Amino acid sequence: MSEERLTACIEKIGELDAAGMASAEQRLNSLTKPPGSLGRLESIAVQAAGITGEIGADFSKRAVIVMAGDHGVCEEGVSAFPAEVTPQMVLNFLAGGAAVNVLARGARADVFCVDMGVNADLMHEGLIVCKTRNGTANMTREAAMSRADAEAAIQGGFDLVAGLAADGYRMFATGDMGIGNTTASAALCAVLGGLPADEAVGLGTGIDEARRRHKVDVVKRAIALNRPDASDPIDALAKVGGLEIAGLVGVILGAAANRCLVVVDGFISSAAALVATAIAPKAAAFMLGSHLSHEQGHAGLLRRIGLTPLIHLEMRLGEGTGAVLAFHLVDAALGVMREMATFESAGVSRE
Amino acid sequence: MSEERLTACIEKIGELDAAGMASAEQRLNSLTKPPGSLGRLESIAVQAAGITGEIGADFSKRAVIVMAGDHGVCEEGVSAFPAEVTPQMVLNFLAGGAAVNVLARGARADVFCVDMGVNADLMHEGLIVCKTRNGTANMTREAAMSRADAEAAIQGGFDLVAGLAADGYRMFATGDMGIGNTTASAALCAVLGGLPADEAVGLGTGIDEARRRHKVDVVKRAIALNRPDASDPIDALAKVGGLEIAGLVGVILGAAANRCLVVVDGFISSAAALVATAIAPKAAAFMLGSHLSHEQGHAGLLRRIGLTPLIHLEMRLGEGTGAVLAFHLVDAALGVMREMATFESAGVSRE
Repeated sequence: MSEERLTACIEKIGELDAAGMASAEQRLNSLTKPPGSLGRLESIAVQAAGITGEIGADFSKRAVIVMAGDHGVCEEGVSAFPAEVTPQMVLNFLAGGAAVNVLARGARADVFCVDMGVNADLMHEGLIVCKTRNGTANMTREAAMSRADAEAAIQGGFDLVAGLAADGYRMFATGDMGIGNTTASAALCAVLGGLPADEAVGLGTGIDEARRRHKVDVVKRAIALNRPDASDPIDALAKVGGLEIAGLVGVILGAAANRCLVVVDGFISSAAALVATAIAPKAAAFMLGSHLSHEQGHAGLLRRIGLTPLIHLEMRLGEGTGAVLAFHLVDAALGVMREMATFESAGVSRE
Repeated sequence: MSEERLTACIEKIGELDAAGMASAEQRLNSLTKPPGSLGRLESIAVQAAGITGEIGADFSKRAVIVMAGDHGVCEEGVSAFPAEVTPQMVLNFLAGGAAVNVLARGARADVFCVDMGVNADLMHEGLIVCKTRNGTANMTREAAMSRADAEAAIQGGFDLVAGLAADGYRMFATGDMGIGNTTASAALCAVLGGLPADEAVGLGTGIDEARRRHKVDVVKRAIALNRPDASDPIDALAKVGGLEIAGLVGVILGAAANRCLVVVDGFISSAAALVATAIAPKAAAFMLGSHLSHEQGHAGLLRRIGLTPLIHLEMRLGEGTGAVLAFHLVDAALGVMREMATFESAGVSRE
């Protein structure tokens, strides 16, 4: 695990296939509908063609990657839930009982659960373990992790996705679990996205306004102490980020490098997407926004990354629950490309 | 087909089941997620329980009802497409090649195509014919149809859904096809929704701004000539509405009367929902908003009905394409109720 190896991986990220996109646009305009009338379903179809070089590619092998990690900053009382919920929920994912499992079954997606740094020694045959440490340090006292830890976590996410892509997976949803991770994500938004801490910090899983103000203070103190370098995304990730967030950065970069579509979930995943695009701007072309979270900083964060949410459900759960719902919309876009009649084949007049 | 019979049908519409909703809320709060964190998926689950009296009811038998009709106002040059496209698209629906067919297959929904007043004598074994006339009259010269025609069309939609509900269908999406029908819908918005004509009239399937201004003038002239009674929704529907819009009013009222969920599509379907709620305010509880159309009047129209869109795809096709996509979200909500683990069963700590 070296910085050089990671750099080499990132350099694999290419451009979208312009010829594939042009063919997709041409096909869309031949279908029995007014030009452009399927809106963003059409842009998804074009993006998918740019990624795969094919029209209406087969994205039926798809997965949600749920990355879990703990956060030392929980000592500061930033969450409505105790930190022990992180490992408990990991076991719930593995048993198939969490929300993301239900929604993934509905979207015919496999769930891979990864221990990126849970503060417990979990043993389960279904669990992918990829950790250098049991949780981050309390970022109000020291850096959340070392630069080497952050790089190892990114590399771990990258390698996981590379392996799945080799097995035929073509589409990924990002998911997260980690009590305290809205605090780390808000800090990354503030450092790398330029959002004021008071805008970036929200109510998380359900704190009140007084606790939110305390959380704003925690984020400000962590940034003041660690002085993350806004021009060095891995420095910011190491100092005020999280292990599961770093893993998701790797998932996004790995998807882009392997020409897969990566559907970005809510606030935590979007913080990872912010880091990923700061590391590798070309990765943005392989990302698709999914839902608008209820978390107050999410809309501003998405604007900074250049993603537009498709689904507005006021969800604030993470786990990949919003991203996996967007798989249905990707399926719809690809189905249109494969199955719709043309004006010519159906004998329908044009304008 | 009499006004008395229609009134008796509408009187069947009841209230949501409060006990069912309370049980659903209780179950939601026992599941392994922060309370309320699934946002509008939770409100959909509660609404479904209110409609059916069951938690996580089986909505697997579901249909999109695509109602087609022609519009005499097309003589005024309000659409980007020629009127002959209406019957051509009906045949495309019946052949399974239109966008709604593709999206319905993806959502495991049946498509029923209804000729409510197409200006052609279509013969096809799959076509449901329910018409009193071949298209409406030009509403800038006379009433679009008689009150009796409007009532017959509503009754036709109502009876169709009642029959499907008797066959086990529990969820419906509304769909429309009718060149010129954004003009009629805009007129209904102006009369019954109080939207200024200039706000209600949009670009439809793709006219330019000059043509849109002409369309605003057409709507204003139709209203000035016919003087529809804003306190009498059937009067407004007859004078400035459309046959397929009237049929969709019947679909919505029929779904409500038979305790089915009805998912409302875009601008035309929302105009029908506006008429339906003006006729029977209790019907609103059985409706679910689906997508926000690109058509400029849609957001204001939805606010007036009290629906909030779930999906933001900038679509402007109609046919039920947005509503059928929302079936996936309903499935997700019901799946959560049926399949998620509880805090107790999974051994997860609460806040």
